Amino acid sequence: MLPWEGELAGRLDREVIESALLRGNPLGDPHERPLWVYTPPGYDTGAATGYPAVYVLQGYTGHVAMWANRTPYRQPFIETADAVFASGLAPPCIVVYVDAWTAYGGSQFVDSPGTGRYHSYLCDEIVPWVDARYRTIPDRESRAVSGKSSGGFGAMITPMLRPDLFGALATHAGDSLYEYVYIPEFGKAVRSLRDYGGDIQRWWDDFRSRVAFTKEADETLLMLLGCAAAFSAREDGTPELPFDPRSGQLRPEVWQRWLAWDPVRMIDRHADALRSLRAVWIDAGNRDQWYLDLGAEAFRSGLERIGVAGDSVHFAHFEGTHTAIDYRYPMALAWLAERLAR
Amino acid sequence: MLPWEGELAGRLDREVIESALLRGNPLGDPHERPLWVYTPPGYDTGAATGYPAVYVLQGYTGHVAMWANRTPYRQPFIETADAVFASGLAPPCIVVYVDAWTAYGGSQFVDSPGTGRYHSYLCDEIVPWVDARYRTIPDRESRAVSGKSSGGFGAMITPMLRPDLFGALATHAGDSLYEYVYIPEFGKAVRSLRDYGGDIQRWWDDFRSRVAFTKEADETLLMLLGCAAAFSAREDGTPELPFDPRSGQLRPEVWQRWLAWDPVRMIDRHADALRSLRAVWIDAGNRDQWYLDLGAEAFRSGLERIGVAGDSVHFAHFEGTHTAIDYRYPMALAWLAERLAR
Amino acid sequence: MLPWEGELAGRLDREVIESALLRGNPLGDPHERPLWVYTPPGYDTGAATGYPAVYVLQGYTGHVAMWANRTPYRQPFIETADAVFASGLAPPCIVVYVDAWTAYGGSQFVDSPGTGRYHSYLCDEIVPWVDARYRTIPDRESRAVSGKSSGGFGAMITPMLRPDLFGALATHAGDSLYEYVYIPEFGKAVRSLRDYGGDIQRWWDDFRSRVAFTKEADETLLMLLGCAAAFSAREDGTPELPFDPRSGQLRPEVWQRWLAWDPVRMIDRHADALRSLRAVWIDAGNRDQWYLDLGAEAFRSGLERIGVAGDSVHFAHFEGTHTAIDYRYPMALAWLAERLAR
Amino acid sequence: MLPWEGELAGRLDREVIESALLRGNPLGDPHERPLWVYTPPGYDTGAATGYPAVYVLQGYTGHVAMWANRTPYRQPFIETADAVFASGLAPPCIVVYVDAWTAYGGSQFVDSPGTGRYHSYLCDEIVPWVDARYRTIPDRESRAVSGKSSGGFGAMITPMLRPDLFGALATHAGDSLYEYVYIPEFGKAVRSLRDYGGDIQRWWDDFRSRVAFTKEADETLLMLLGCAAAFSAREDGTPELPFDPRSGQLRPEVWQRWLAWDPVRMIDRHADALRSLRAVWIDAGNRDQWYLDLGAEAFRSGLERIGVAGDSVHFAHFEGTHTAIDYRYPMALAWLAERLAR
Repeated sequence: MLPWEGELAGRLDREVIESALLRGNPLGDPHERPLWVYTPPGYDTGAATGYPAVYVLQGYTGHVAMWANRTPYRQPFIETADAVFASGLAPPCIVVYVDAWTAYGGSQFVDSPGTGRYHSYLCDEIVPWVDARYRTIPDRESRAVSGKSSGGFGAMITPMLRPDLFGALATHAGDSLYEYVYIPEFGKAVRSLRDYGGDIQRWWDDFRSRVAFTKEADETLLMLLGCAAAFSAREDGTPELPFDPRSGQLRPEVWQRWLAWDPVRMIDRHADALRSLRAVWIDAGNRDQWYLDLGAEAFRSGLERIGVAGDSVHFAHFEGTHTAIDYRYPMALAWLAERLAR
Repeated sequence: MLPWEGELAGRLDREVIESALLRGNPLGDPHERPLWVYTPPGYDTGAATGYPAVYVLQGYTGHVAMWANRTPYRQPFIETADAVFASGLAPPCIVVYVDAWTAYGGSQFVDSPGTGRYHSYLCDEIVPWVDARYRTIPDRESRAVSGKSSGGFGAMITPMLRPDLFGALATHAGDSLYEYVYIPEFGKAVRSLRDYGGDIQRWWDDFRSRVAFTKEADETLLMLLGCAAAFSAREDGTPELPFDPRSGQLRPEVWQRWLAWDPVRMIDRHADALRSLRAVWIDAGNRDQWYLDLGAEAFRSGLERIGVAGDSVHFAHFEGTHTAIDYRYPMALAWLAERLAR
Repeated sequence: MLPWEGELAGRLDREVIESALLRGNPLGDPHERPLWVYTPPGYDTGAATGYPAVYVLQGYTGHVAMWANRTPYRQPFIETADAVFASGLAPPCIVVYVDAWTAYGGSQFVDSPGTGRYHSYLCDEIVPWVDARYRTIPDRESRAVSGKSSGGFGAMITPMLRPDLFGALATHAGDSLYEYVYIPEFGKAVRSLRDYGGDIQRWWDDFRSRVAFTKEADETLLMLLGCAAAFSAREDGTPELPFDPRSGQLRPEVWQRWLAWDPVRMIDRHADALRSLRAVWIDAGNRDQWYLDLGAEAFRSGLERIGVAGDSVHFAHFEGTHTAIDYRYPMALAWLAERLAR
Repeated sequence: MLPWEGELAGRLDREVIESALLRGNPLGDPHERPLWVYTPPGYDTGAATGYPAVYVLQGYTGHVAMWANRTPYRQPFIETADAVFASGLAPPCIVVYVDAWTAYGGSQFVDSPGTGRYHSYLCDEIVPWVDARYRTIPDRESRAVSGKSSGGFGAMITPMLRPDLFGALATHAGDSLYEYVYIPEFGKAVRSLRDYGGDIQRWWDDFRSRVAFTKEADETLLMLLGCAAAFSAREDGTPELPFDPRSGQLRPEVWQRWLAWDPVRMIDRHADALRSLRAVWIDAGNRDQWYLDLGAEAFRSGLERIGVAGDSVHFAHFEGTHTAIDYRYPMALAWLAERLAR
């Protein structure tokens, strides 16, 4: 009974996938990973032979078990997603909750010597694993990816890199326009690092030795360390910061590696892939703390510029910030389900 | 495996208690309530005949299922509490996770015509229920109550009202010195209520008709409505605000009803009860957003003034705010366990 | 030429008044005080025998020479006030800029053993001095007082105490509803005083020994010390704080002395005086940092309650905060001038 | 008498300079400009034939008459500067207070078709004017420039461009590392411009039609409009924003024009000029709202990199923000005076 628990009309399988690609990853994170797969009402009893699938990615520091967290007055997405299908509001889909957690809090869903091969793990291991075990329609036209924040970033880049696998996406306040997202964080980081002689590794050692998030610096430094591991690790896996840790001055060659992963800046390199998408949902709160409403608009206008059909794009600035916007997820899911089913 | 799940060395029973006292409560909230009872390692196999029990209360808007929520880099209290005993750091205890959720987000653990008889439900239903089903030491000397924020408030007042039941307590940033806690909230509320013609009931109707917490006013107004229901409801259950909703001017007779529940102001009325306590843990972050570090100090000095023995009190201002301070809970639990066992 | 300087159509006399009442004041502040008197266009050449007078008070930490300060894009009030008359927008008035600075930053325009006899100095020295030297109409019906913040407070209380002298007032965000104004400041003060062993005198010694306002605590502590000197000094002049400096707990008998100076709480004691006023301007920004929009509304509704005629009151909540609201002053001045001339 | 007025031991001449270069400037600002020149004690009576001169620039929105503004508890710089010499703390200097105000709030001390030829006005008109009328040592070795914020920027760039004129500088929180300074402002601007259809010109028309600074957007948009006029005006004087006003996306060619004026990025182009300086004072508050503490460190380390002698540089991060740091100015002035006199 609510608020303590919600019933699902469909079924949620809490599986474990053994990843060959993540085995021996540089951070020593587990290569056996939880994977939650949701099947909609009717899946078990019905005769339908193929369902579209929506892969759901998480924001920074998120891991898959957090989808079960309960908050007052709202239900978890696993329940509001279920309600989309239980209500008949949208055609049935399989929903796949992906885990890409790392010791640094996230992988940004890319392959990196700093964290591991999380992009390939998603595309070459999870997708086939799901297709092999569930009655999906194993086709890009019936496969979407969605997420918020860093998960929205993953949802933007994955179809760009693998249009053979994904034909639709939804990004809620996805990371983009990196100068707005990251530069103020670099500024905070420089100040925080004064206590660590400018050495983020010393902060990391400190962070692991005590209760996490008891210093104000922790959130910013963790995110930057993780992004550096994802975007600008050296061959040997060492994360390189894109700024001088004492002055904040950008290191152009490293910062350029980050910018190469800015979805807005990736559009032209992946224009064909983007034009091939049948459905793109983009939204963000109009007061997003990381200016991701600007990133959303920049991504939208970039798609328009390269000729993505306007009727395949849904765009919204909604009243809100980066926080507590999970109620947007089922809206995008219903919209994607409708589009994937056409 | 962490961070996705943690193993308990002890056992957590997720029970349901049927409350006669909550049946027909004014908000129509369920009278069948979840109740989680933890037994420490050795409980099932050992010969021990009696365990102290610590009752754990939640902060405002908390319900018992939220104890299972996972966050990155920290474990839920149900796991850090288990670790206290699994590590042998403290003598074994039973831990009881109480639910006192209401439609307004909380009950403040008092009996009120506005919300229901939650104080009596805790004292006269939950405690006997636990004692009847678990090998507790059914004695005030072996029973404690703890909590954070509104839960800390509950932990302060319950032993004052029922020293026959509780002989120890722990309060983390518990509500106290109400002028510091509430008056700034009244100010915010007046401004928010301008959109509702000064009528909090109109806000409540709006709140229930849409996604919760999509307006900035929501958090403040919900808390004030709930506190008014708990502290200053009319006989018929209607919550009365302690301030004029247009000017903020205090309504002295209503505000006095709130102040009568300020733990700092309750000390003298309950001095004997407080002097009888064998263990009182008080802490708060030195930058608490509701100035509960001041409330903590005022509570501590009040205990000192009435002659509570200094060696039965543990007091700390720690570096921090009101947020993310759950790592304090197992520290207090271990301390209580030690004291209860003496 | 603007923005560097503005021409006055009228004349501003920068006078000095020697105050017998301030001689030997407890803080050792000068008893010779600047007093600026403005006469409108036509005063020197015209035959008019009597002008209404508006006395202008300043906010906390203000001294009279600050009226000449220039800001980009706005003119000082001495110039916008002049423009009211130069434009013919309102009937001519004399405007008197009063100085009530003290070493603590202000006097709150009251008589106190902690600061000096600033109320009497205003009423019994400045007013007669002006009437003796300028062609005022020396009558309550033609005399108003106005101000912002603490100056608005002075503008509210002075006619209550001396209705024989003042028949009109304008308060912009004047101090009122003291619980909203001061209690959060007490909270900040307690925290700041941790560095001074809870002794505000130690802070004061520190403050005077270094560059002012280089510590975050300075603004709050200065204001509270000054208000304690004004509202709750002992007979010997020592300021008593209305709260315990370690816990923040209110000291009821001292706090009551402050509340006795809350304009909203003074209304009933001075109802006849208030009913006798011919013009009352009340305004405040709807996001005032000290919730003085609530105080303004409470003062307005208090006047209504005691039967002050509605057409003698002008009330406005305007879009804004407590900052940069000087553009409201000439609006009130014009309105007062109109009323005083009737 | 303080705090109302301060006596100068030296003399402040409030002059007006008629600028040929500013005549007909694009904003229609006056070409007759105030110029304040201070001569130290002994200047009028003494036999000294040559004094070093320090030119003082203001921050954004500042005009020269604001140097006379009084604040509580601190004296204006014209008085604290005087005290440096009156006290004998440093060898005597002439101090020149420069005005470079524009309708947009500032000129950034550069020549631009958007605002006018303010750099040349400073170097080719003010300097010769002063040298012709005062007993300066008319030599780069005896001439310095100083300022805060945009004035600090001016102090950094002017000697780079005109090492023949200036041999020393002091920058307090001078604009530098433009990505940290401006990109967050661009983000705010995009949001503010939503109310103006993305057209800053529409905002400007609105701004001029009402009381300034009554909308939250005003400060950011004014500064960006002024900087665009200074750094990236078209030939015809139209300011071009360096970002798309709807998405915030940088316009690389325009943004590059701004970056070309980043002092940190100018170092290599002007290395010889910088190496020729005999004294460089750099400081900033360690919590500067525009991260100018980072800019200060980047400028310092850039000087070190190109081989500026360490003993000619004074660097400090002090406890503070961007606000209320005027007490640093006389410290730098004394240090410069000492260096210029050697």
